[in-house]
Amino acid sequence: MEIGFIGLGQMGKAIAGRLLGSGHRVRVWNRSPQAVQELVANGAQAASQPAGLGKVDFLLSMLANDAATRAVIVDQGLLDAARPGLIHLNLATVSVGLAKELAELHRQRNIGYIGAPVFGRPDAAAAGKLHVVVAGDPATVAKAQPVIDAIGQKSWPVGDQPEHANVVKIAGNFMIASAIETMGEAVALTRSYGVKADTFLDILTNTLFAAPAYKVYGSMIAVEKYTPAGFPAPLGLKDVRLALTAADANNVPMPFANVLRDSLMELIATGGGDNDWVAMAKVAARRAGL
Amino acid sequence: MEIGFIGLGQMGKAIAGRLLGSGHRVRVWNRSPQAVQELVANGAQAASQPAGLGKVDFLLSMLANDAATRAVIVDQGLLDAARPGLIHLNLATVSVGLAKELAELHRQRNIGYIGAPVFGRPDAAAAGKLHVVVAGDPATVAKAQPVIDAIGQKSWPVGDQPEHANVVKIAGNFMIASAIETMGEAVALTRSYGVKADTFLDILTNTLFAAPAYKVYGSMIAVEKYTPAGFPAPLGLKDVRLALTAADANNVPMPFANVLRDSLMELIATGGGDNDWVAMAKVAARRAGL
Amino acid sequence: MEIGFIGLGQMGKAIAGRLLGSGHRVRVWNRSPQAVQELVANGAQAASQPAGLGKVDFLLSMLANDAATRAVIVDQGLLDAARPGLIHLNLATVSVGLAKELAELHRQRNIGYIGAPVFGRPDAAAAGKLHVVVAGDPATVAKAQPVIDAIGQKSWPVGDQPEHANVVKIAGNFMIASAIETMGEAVALTRSYGVKADTFLDILTNTLFAAPAYKVYGSMIAVEKYTPAGFPAPLGLKDVRLALTAADANNVPMPFANVLRDSLMELIATGGGDNDWVAMAKVAARRAGL
Amino acid sequence: MEIGFIGLGQMGKAIAGRLLGSGHRVRVWNRSPQAVQELVANGAQAASQPAGLGKVDFLLSMLANDAATRAVIVDQGLLDAARPGLIHLNLATVSVGLAKELAELHRQRNIGYIGAPVFGRPDAAAAGKLHVVVAGDPATVAKAQPVIDAIGQKSWPVGDQPEHANVVKIAGNFMIASAIETMGEAVALTRSYGVKADTFLDILTNTLFAAPAYKVYGSMIAVEKYTPAGFPAPLGLKDVRLALTAADANNVPMPFANVLRDSLMELIATGGGDNDWVAMAKVAARRAGL
Repeated sequence: MEIGFIGLGQMGKAIAGRLLGSGHRVRVWNRSPQAVQELVANGAQAASQPAGLGKVDFLLSMLANDAATRAVIVDQGLLDAARPGLIHLNLATVSVGLAKELAELHRQRNIGYIGAPVFGRPDAAAAGKLHVVVAGDPATVAKAQPVIDAIGQKSWPVGDQPEHANVVKIAGNFMIASAIETMGEAVALTRSYGVKADTFLDILTNTLFAAPAYKVYGSMIAVEKYTPAGFPAPLGLKDVRLALTAADANNVPMPFANVLRDSLMELIATGGGDNDWVAMAKVAARRAGL
Repeated sequence: MEIGFIGLGQMGKAIAGRLLGSGHRVRVWNRSPQAVQELVANGAQAASQPAGLGKVDFLLSMLANDAATRAVIVDQGLLDAARPGLIHLNLATVSVGLAKELAELHRQRNIGYIGAPVFGRPDAAAAGKLHVVVAGDPATVAKAQPVIDAIGQKSWPVGDQPEHANVVKIAGNFMIASAIETMGEAVALTRSYGVKADTFLDILTNTLFAAPAYKVYGSMIAVEKYTPAGFPAPLGLKDVRLALTAADANNVPMPFANVLRDSLMELIATGGGDNDWVAMAKVAARRAGL
Repeated sequence: MEIGFIGLGQMGKAIAGRLLGSGHRVRVWNRSPQAVQELVANGAQAASQPAGLGKVDFLLSMLANDAATRAVIVDQGLLDAARPGLIHLNLATVSVGLAKELAELHRQRNIGYIGAPVFGRPDAAAAGKLHVVVAGDPATVAKAQPVIDAIGQKSWPVGDQPEHANVVKIAGNFMIASAIETMGEAVALTRSYGVKADTFLDILTNTLFAAPAYKVYGSMIAVEKYTPAGFPAPLGLKDVRLALTAADANNVPMPFANVLRDSLMELIATGGGDNDWVAMAKVAARRAGL
Repeated sequence: MEIGFIGLGQMGKAIAGRLLGSGHRVRVWNRSPQAVQELVANGAQAASQPAGLGKVDFLLSMLANDAATRAVIVDQGLLDAARPGLIHLNLATVSVGLAKELAELHRQRNIGYIGAPVFGRPDAAAAGKLHVVVAGDPATVAKAQPVIDAIGQKSWPVGDQPEHANVVKIAGNFMIASAIETMGEAVALTRSYGVKADTFLDILTNTLFAAPAYKVYGSMIAVEKYTPAGFPAPLGLKDVRLALTAADANNVPMPFANVLRDSLMELIATGGGDNDWVAMAKVAARRAGL
């Protein structure tokens, strides 16, 4: 079988590399050519335009956001070039609205479409250790399972409509952002009484909150290290907005998400646009005059 | 050495029992006699009033809140009856304000005072597996270390003023409440799109949020089990108010804590006063018409 | 001069009627024909489609929202049919984004475009007593001034870009919504102590808050009369979302607006979609168990 | 009849002066002597200590806060010195909790007690133009009506328990603070699009919001004049806390009040403790990078 891969940013490159490394045939396209050259050097075929991936068995895409996804998949003709029976796994964090729209566009063309966003960072992707959230038509998912298994340590089926996977991913990212804000406020409180951030966080992240989301971001808050950004504030804000937009469509109040958006907007509006989104903790401290 | 123990609620009884079980001499007092009888059956001495514990080497107290602590320790004469040199470890979650006040009252009488609130539930207490947050004069803490080690699997020194420990405990409880609200909102969002609560929480609490705070409360949210309460909403509200009061005193804005207070007040005001505080998730769902 | 008028809802019909009543020649179009017939009976000319208004001197439009505005003005060919030199006054509450987009589309065709949203209800419109917020190229506004004066008791110039008027109108509506929520919370508080809503509101709306926004909505809160809706909750939510969307684009945190959106979503999600938006006060009371 | 007056701050001095000016016999006490001397020069009698006012017919007090009220009225013996039948009108903005407590202490001594907080500034007080919110036993209020009429242009009876008046006053102050925050956010939004603050506020405060609360504070926001403070931020924060404390006691969520507290705490924590509370608008702008 042949796998097409579109979108070779940090995550995409790592996943495509993983597929090549485990012996799959992979045909790639990317807007900028450098990442393509690296993968070609490792055995990938290169397509000169998105439509050049229309004949593969499985198409995987990992594009930056809704706009890039729409541009490459729909506007540049890839969907029209796709052969009936092709199965497209969209690994990106896109909006629930776009997921629904894409599902319909694929259905009209007899192309399979699976929502398959992932949890994990590039190093996990390179090692095939991602967690893949999967949603779509069960028969289609069954056919794609070998591909899913090739990129993830575990797949988590969440429903038979592709957007089910996206809302899970979006809600998960909201939970990470909430963990950051939570630590930011807790540290502002304890610091105001003279307890150091690392003293406080060391306790909590090794006991009740001994989980990756808290350990990773807690360690950054403890040393107040906010640049260079692993995940820049504007991307974090984009994700929080995805949650709020999805919630808005169903009239779901999310007061925590409101706070998160405001903290990230304040961070960016006051010069922190190049900070990691964990710098929400800096905003919490600043509000308290710390 | 002789240990005095005051406040034999669920937690207090478990800790006192642990001390007896590991061979310590323990003298107890409690407002209601039943718990006293149980411990006497296991070898404890009983005092007929709080002041009867004034001659012990170490006094441990685990009283329900500020009012009970003040009533028993100060108003009923225990402090006045205490011999100079006695060391009092206050295990309860009391306000920062009361901690400061007690520290001063002990200092005036040459009695040691250590803030020593604990993380852990009664079963952990019975097994000596608590995490003990410790703050106070270092020399005093050093003398009390054997007692601290007898009740906890680990002690976490956080400062040389007793209230340092209380603010850490209060901030930790705030983090737990935030985790609950976070899951409540995330589940409301995903449920509104047709993803079941347990499907969603199973993923997150086994990956990025694989930590006790999320697992314990996530499992309750997944099955919407809010009664009988392990930790009733009014106690949760009390703890959130401790955080807000401590923050208020230092002008530290905590927007998440505001949301938590409002959710818990709404829960209680609308008939959920007998629910576990995790029922904040029910409030989040109800606001969305779920 | 001839005036074209598009969008004959309650407000549009009243304004067009006012223009006819003061002796202007008016040519109208509306999606549903009934309102057209009423105005024709009063002397208006009817166009069979939007493009039929392309030759007037001044085009006034009062369409329900962004989608309707885009559909009628752009998609159905009116803009393409408009003669160069025509001046379009958009009276509707549209988004800042659409205002910018329309300004550009008009500029490309040498058609004047003025943002001219209004404050006031249908009875004020019928009497020519609206307040008209005006923004656009000063020379264009000067030419349109007689038309503006015909519909309003006063015009308020706020800038030379049409969207300036829209952001003012959007911010004004946000202020009304905030006044409602403010009264809702204040009444919940005072009612919880046994003070009746009308007793409380009578004082405030006749002293410090003796202004139309408070008097109109305060009188509805005092008698808990939320249906039939003068301004239904979903329209209010639309307006609050316009504020949040405009704020989002510029990274402006608006914590009050967040609360408003959540209250309106909760109102609608729990069955109050047919209520007036002033029923936010009912939500505030319900949260307190009142 | 003889009137006693305690608490000669700006407001108290103006009210006592008004009483003297309209021909009443007034006996005064104040912590600092200067204000006493001014009133004595205008015909007042001076008492050397609070208890010296125990024989008057009506006692009016206008003390700064709960602590001062408790200190002067209760702790310094005034209440114990008061003759049975004396009627005490408490004009100050005190907590609901203290109002209840004082009502009980007066009842035990057969002394009348009326909650009578006022709306209005010193100039209105000097002219007898205050609005007096009145609550207490109806027969007692009836006896005191001539005194109430002497200080206010209108009295507003709100209930038969003194704290009814206090919760009304507290809720009214909350409404003023909400109006400030509302304008602050609205101005941040419109400024971010290039509309000047005074342009925007001129429209709203002359139309829908043409009321004293908006005009007074709107004019300060328009010119960004926050010092010297007419009403300093710490006093505003005190009042918002009175609202939150009263709400807390009855489990009434007030999300707007939360925002207000956070804005005022942030203002003070970041160096604005000497600003007028209207500087909340500055905080709103700063969060948006304006």
